[in-house]
Amino acid sequence: MPIKSRIRTIPHWPKEGIMFRDITTLLQDPIGFQLAIDKLVDRYKDSDIDFICAIEARGFILGAPLSIALGKGFIPIRKKGKLPGKTISQDYELEYGTDTIEIHVDALKEGQKVLIVDDLLATGGTVFGAIELVEKTGAKVQECAFVVDLPELGGSQRLEERGIPYFKLVDFEGH
Amino acid sequence: MPIKSRIRTIPHWPKEGIMFRDITTLLQDPIGFQLAIDKLVDRYKDSDIDFICAIEARGFILGAPLSIALGKGFIPIRKKGKLPGKTISQDYELEYGTDTIEIHVDALKEGQKVLIVDDLLATGGTVFGAIELVEKTGAKVQECAFVVDLPELGGSQRLEERGIPYFKLVDFEGH
Repeated sequence: MPIKSRIRTIPHWPKEGIMFRDITTLLQDPIGFQLAIDKLVDRYKDSDIDFICAIEARGFILGAPLSIALGKGFIPIRKKGKLPGKTISQDYELEYGTDTIEIHVDALKEGQKVLIVDDLLATGGTVFGAIELVEKTGAKVQECAFVVDLPELGGSQRLEERGIPYFKLVDFEGH
Repeated sequence: MPIKSRIRTIPHWPKEGIMFRDITTLLQDPIGFQLAIDKLVDRYKDSDIDFICAIEARGFILGAPLSIALGKGFIPIRKKGKLPGKTISQDYELEYGTDTIEIHVDALKEGQKVLIVDDLLATGGTVFGAIELVEKTGAKVQECAFVVDLPELGGSQRLEERGIPYFKLVDFEGH
């Protein structure tokens, strides 16, 4: 697995018991980073998506090259207070408490088709927040794409239950 | 100016008197985003840089496609507490107070050549923090690249005084 073997595991980060899957080692290797983008391009080169919506901050690192490769516009979904124009907000669940993400209210129009991109799918809290945001604009989430899926944390199952297609490059067992 | 005309100005954000130069309208337009990346690729396609170091978060949106286009590895410079491996930290000056950015300690080796990428050069506080970080690893900052320069805020002059080459796609007057 040329992509998986380039992802480093940092044990007990950000806290005891978590095996953090660190994609910085993949990104730093130009062959690895290109491989990851190529697999995303292969998946979406014939799709009819209008925009890539990438989730701050690691989602930007994957979504931006994909946007350039596909010739589709890039729309950032950011943490609260970071976007300068008029925004729509959405709270989403973290393990403890909630956080808020935003999108520019004029970024999407009704009926436009969106690919949401983030680095990692765990419980799905963040991506479900992003889906709600996109749907509030009237646009449609065509699919969600990730480099890493942690299926035991249930995010991919929740996406299936909601009927939202998703795509991931690699899986890891555990948390 | 096909790039400049695609950058939106949001008056009085994040506070009264600031004319915020918003690149999200450039990024959302696939022709505009491609133009910006093409100009960066033209500048660096024959350079001997080893890595792109991009500054969180908007710098990721420019640095990642440039990294793919040039076939150079991508290294994130992030806000404190975001990188999972062992890091080096650097405080830098904001208008009021200070903030801290970090890089993975094993990301760079002595003598490697780095291009630092961010979206905007204002007073230069953040980019000088990034330069200090890269130099602490023993690597060398070959150049710093930005989409927008605000020369009246003095960052570009400070870079010149330090003897660090920089490149920008467009200038705006004022703050």
